[in-house]
This record gives sequence, C-alpha cells and structure tokens, in this order.
Amino acid sequence: MNWRDRPRIGVMGPSECLPGVSNLAREVGQLIARAGGILICGGRGGVMEAAACGAKDAGGITIGILPGSSASEANAYIDIPVVTGMGNARNVINVLTSQAVIVIHGGCGTLSEIALALKCGTPVVALETWSVIPPEGGARPEIVTVTTPEEAVSAALSCIRGD
Amino acid sequence: MNWRDRPRIGVMGPSECLPGVSNLAREVGQLIARAGGILICGGRGGVMEAAACGAKDAGGITIGILPGSSASEANAYIDIPVVTGMGNARNVINVLTSQAVIVIHGGCGTLSEIALALKCGTPVVALETWSVIPPEGGARPEIVTVTTPEEAVSAALSCIRGD
Amino acid sequence: MNWRDRPRIGVMGPSECLPGVSNLAREVGQLIARAGGILICGGRGGVMEAAACGAKDAGGITIGILPGSSASEANAYIDIPVVTGMGNARNVINVLTSQAVIVIHGGCGTLSEIALALKCGTPVVALETWSVIPPEGGARPEIVTVTTPEEAVSAALSCIRGD
Amino acid sequence: MNWRDRPRIGVMGPSECLPGVSNLAREVGQLIARAGGILICGGRGGVMEAAACGAKDAGGITIGILPGSSASEANAYIDIPVVTGMGNARNVINVLTSQAVIVIHGGCGTLSEIALALKCGTPVVALETWSVIPPEGGARPEIVTVTTPEEAVSAALSCIRGD
Repeated sequence: MNWRDRPRIGVMGPSECLPGVSNLAREVGQLIARAGGILICGGRGGVMEAAACGAKDAGGITIGILPGSSASEANAYIDIPVVTGMGNARNVINVLTSQAVIVIHGGCGTLSEIALALKCGTPVVALETWSVIPPEGGARPEIVTVTTPEEAVSAALSCIRGD
Repeated sequence: MNWRDRPRIGVMGPSECLPGVSNLAREVGQLIARAGGILICGGRGGVMEAAACGAKDAGGITIGILPGSSASEANAYIDIPVVTGMGNARNVINVLTSQAVIVIHGGCGTLSEIALALKCGTPVVALETWSVIPPEGGARPEIVTVTTPEEAVSAALSCIRGD
Repeated sequence: MNWRDRPRIGVMGPSECLPGVSNLAREVGQLIARAGGILICGGRGGVMEAAACGAKDAGGITIGILPGSSASEANAYIDIPVVTGMGNARNVINVLTSQAVIVIHGGCGTLSEIALALKCGTPVVALETWSVIPPEGGARPEIVTVTTPEEAVSAALSCIRGD
Repeated sequence: MNWRDRPRIGVMGPSECLPGVSNLAREVGQLIARAGGILICGGRGGVMEAAACGAKDAGGITIGILPGSSASEANAYIDIPVVTGMGNARNVINVLTSQAVIVIHGGCGTLSEIALALKCGTPVVALETWSVIPPEGGARPEIVTVTTPEEAVSAALSCIRGD
C-alpha cells in the first residue's frame, strides 16, 4: 500500500496506566497495524507505549510526537520520533496529524486531546475515557463511544473512509 | 500597585455567544479590573471581547493572546495583542500566562483550555461551562464551580493568593 | 496615549552579554519608553534584562515572552510575563508581536529572531549584530543597520509609522 | 535496518527555487535514501519537494513537517505528513527532529532554520546557502560548508555518527 493511502490513526492516553488499560491500548495498536494504519501517538509511556508496542508486534509503523527536546524520551517502540520541544502544545500536532483519534482512559492531558481533536475536526473514538457534558444550550460534541479495541479501530477506519 | 503584584486572570470562552453569556463575561471583566487584575484572554470575539470590554470600562488592562499572525484580529478592547501565529496551540499560552482561569460557557476550544489549565496546574473556576467526568478509577479534577461573576473573580483571587 | 496606539518594539539579544552591550540595550529600552513604546522581549537575562531595566527607569512598560513554563523565569524588570512553554518557538511570537525589532549583538537564538522577523515581515533594525549574506542569486534582506541607540529607536519608530 | 538506527536527516531550503538548486536537492534526497536515512523536511514545494522526490526515487522514506493545518498541503513525495498548524514555529520542530540538517540555498525561512539548528545543537551542513558573520567578539558558528550533494550527505552522516 502507498504510504499516503495508509490511515494515520492517533492513540491518545495517559503516560502511566494500569495493566487493564495497557492491554486495551496494546490491542488497539495491533489492530491499527493489521489494518495497514500508521500509529500516531505522543511517544511516551503508558497508553502510548502499549499502543506502539502492539503496533510493532503486528509489523506496523509508529510515529511519536514528543513534548520535550530530545528523541531519547521516546519509548522503545517508536520508529520515528518527532521532536517538538513544545510541551503540551504538541497535543495540537497529535490531533492534526491523525485522521482520527482513539482515546483510551486518561488524565487532563488526554482530555485536552479530546477537546482539541473536536475543535480541529478530527473524529474522536472514546474507549473508557472522559465524558464531557456541554453547558446549557451548547451542542453535544460528536464522539463515537465504543467498548472494545475492535470497535475502536473499526470506528476510526470508518470515520477516515467517510463511511 | 506594582505590575508584577497584579493578579493575571484568564477569561476563557467562545468567540460567539448569546447576550446572557456576554453579560456574565462583561461583569467578570469589570470585577477583575476593579480588583487590580490584568485580564488575559484569547483576544477575539464573544466572551473574550465582552470580558475585555468590561475590564476597560472599569479602567483595567487587557492582554489578548491571538491565534493568528496579525494584531488586527484583536478585538477593540485589547490593550496589548500578543501575536502567536500558532492557532489552537495558543490555548496553552493562555493558561500558562494566567495565574487562574475563569471559564464561561464555551465550545470545544474552551474545553481544551479547561483541560490544559488542569494539566498545567493553573486553577480553574467554572461559570456555566462544561462538566467533565473522568474515566472509572480516574481522579476527579479540581475545578471550582461558581454561579455568579462575583463568586468567580473572588474564587480566582483566592486561588492566586493561596487562600 | 491609547494603549493600542503605543508602538510595540521588540529588543532581541543574548541572555548573557558584556557590559558594553548591556549599556546599549539599557539605552535602547529607555528611549523606547520615552517614545511611549511598549517594550517586547524574551523576558530573560542579558540584553533582554538590560533593555527592560532601561524601559522601567524611564517609566515604560515591558512584556516578556518566556520560553519556559513558569513566570518566575522572567527578569525583575518585566511587568507582564507571557508564559509560552514552547522553548525556542517563542522566538516566532516575539517577532510577530513586535511591530519592529531592534537586534543587539547576540548568538544563534538572536540570529533566528532576525531571520524570523524578516520572514514574517517585521522590520529589523541591527545594532552591532550579525551580518547575513544570501546565497548567490538570493535577495539581500532589508535590514536597517544603525550604530547608536538613538538611531535604532528612531529607525524602529519610522518603520512602524511607515515613514 | 531498525527504524531507530536509520539517520534522520533534514533538508532545508526555499519553497520555490531554480532548476539548478532543485537538482542539487534531488541528488541530496537520493543519497540520503541510499544511505538508509529518513528524510525530514518542511513538506512543501521547491527544495523540499525536490529532496523528497529524490528520496522516493531511491526507495527512501520522507517525513514532511507542515506549517498549516491540513495534510493536503504536503507535496506528492511526502510519505508521512506531520501537521502542526503552527506556521513558522514548525521550523523548530524540523531542526529538533533532524539529527543533522543539510541547508540548500534559501530565503529568510531557511536562514531561521540554520540559526535554530545551531541554537538547538543540531549539526548544520551548508550547500550554496547563506553566510552568517557574528557580531564582534561573538563566536563563529560551527557550520560545515560543502560544495556537492555527495559531500553534504557524507558530512551529515559523519556528524550523526560522531566521527
């Protein structure tokens, strides 16, 4: 498959997580790779590392968009580190670079990625993550809520293909 | 008062809003100015403009941190436009520059500012805005929820003084 | 004078410098303040600190656009710290926020500010700083070279007024 | 070869250029690919496009770090577009992500990349590009000046290996 035709799917989640969450992320990474996708993530630990590990297990390719100024902060499963030196502002790059994002669990950084993706028009697939309720009169954001890794990757691919 | 001793309070909200929301923002801006605060905002329309207008009414000073590449996009009540050219990444600068943020109503950009403020450790005061519910097992974020402009500014000042 | 009518003049230079350079920067800062200008700088030591000190001596106002994530890294003469958390990417904000920049001496960070200002269309006034020679066939950049603080501030004001 | 062991080499240059410059860039791209390198560039036209085209001719892989908010602005030879939405601030990401940069010809944007690379400690190889002369007393920056594409890629590889 041509590189540009491969879907670029972001996996967003916390840099530290429990084994259950890590297992979900790993499965998501594997499924992205099997679908021919390019895994985009923040390049660090926790969900990012587990997803990248899964993608590599399945022969995929992984991009890590790092907050710091050194490629050495990338986890061991990142093929291509993108070094931004921009701290949390790199979250914007994550969601702009991904054609859809799968969000797994997460803290406030992950919540910012949900919000920035919605703002930028990148489809958001939610797997055991934050719920957000708009203020009175505000529009409910379009988030696809799923319960399994299979559903998550399938939903992300659907969004990208425009199904 | 010495400039550096003046509290820097961010007001975050949508670039378009209904009159009721606009009135809240204007009052918040007035109260920030009366408290000797420096108003930080995104520099554009809606809540940002109403808050800046209120601050100027009360003799305050206003900083607008703009997403685009030209100072001309600042609303008429911005004293000092900071031109970033960085789109939504400027939301990070808003919340790092503010010592506390008051969030009023808002869409997904505003939600990202709530999340980024929480991530960066900037206190968040919520006035008729998003509710966010963490994933199972996740910590509930520390957000001060208020119902009036007076409570909002009072809470922001308390956070800054470390009350 | 209305805040928005006050010229926003950047002073760019190294974070460490010899006394002779520091004296130039201080004089430039004083003259900017006396002309009613708002001093924009990177907020740290060396030329930035000396220029801000000069501006405060003359009753001016100073904005420091900081690379790190804490207002505490601002020098003592910064009235309003803008906290970017973006490292060297904040150099872009410096030159977009300034209506003209005066560049004094400097290392590679300062050279990047000369280049970014030229790229963004912000007029550059050079005072004992880098010389840059374009590749064969390339256009010589428009830099106003001066030899005294008086000439520097006068040239910056001329550029802003469109003389 | 393991992805992480492949050298990441940036090619910086103008978005429009004459055929002679374009030919140099294409050759540089080819040689980077033949050496197993990953080509990093700004993703747009001119030198960036020619270098990416050369790399693809030789079976390499190309990363384009884009200034705008859409992957569609990438040239046809970019395998993986990184979408920053940050305008010229993306130049910082170019030089941090590259382990060495080869600079070919160029305007003020390219000059900023030379300066930012020097500032960030990324080795700079200059091929028919800007000359920069520091202010009196300032240190001459360490730039490797070369005259052919072969020398350029060879010098970049040497810098990365620490020869």
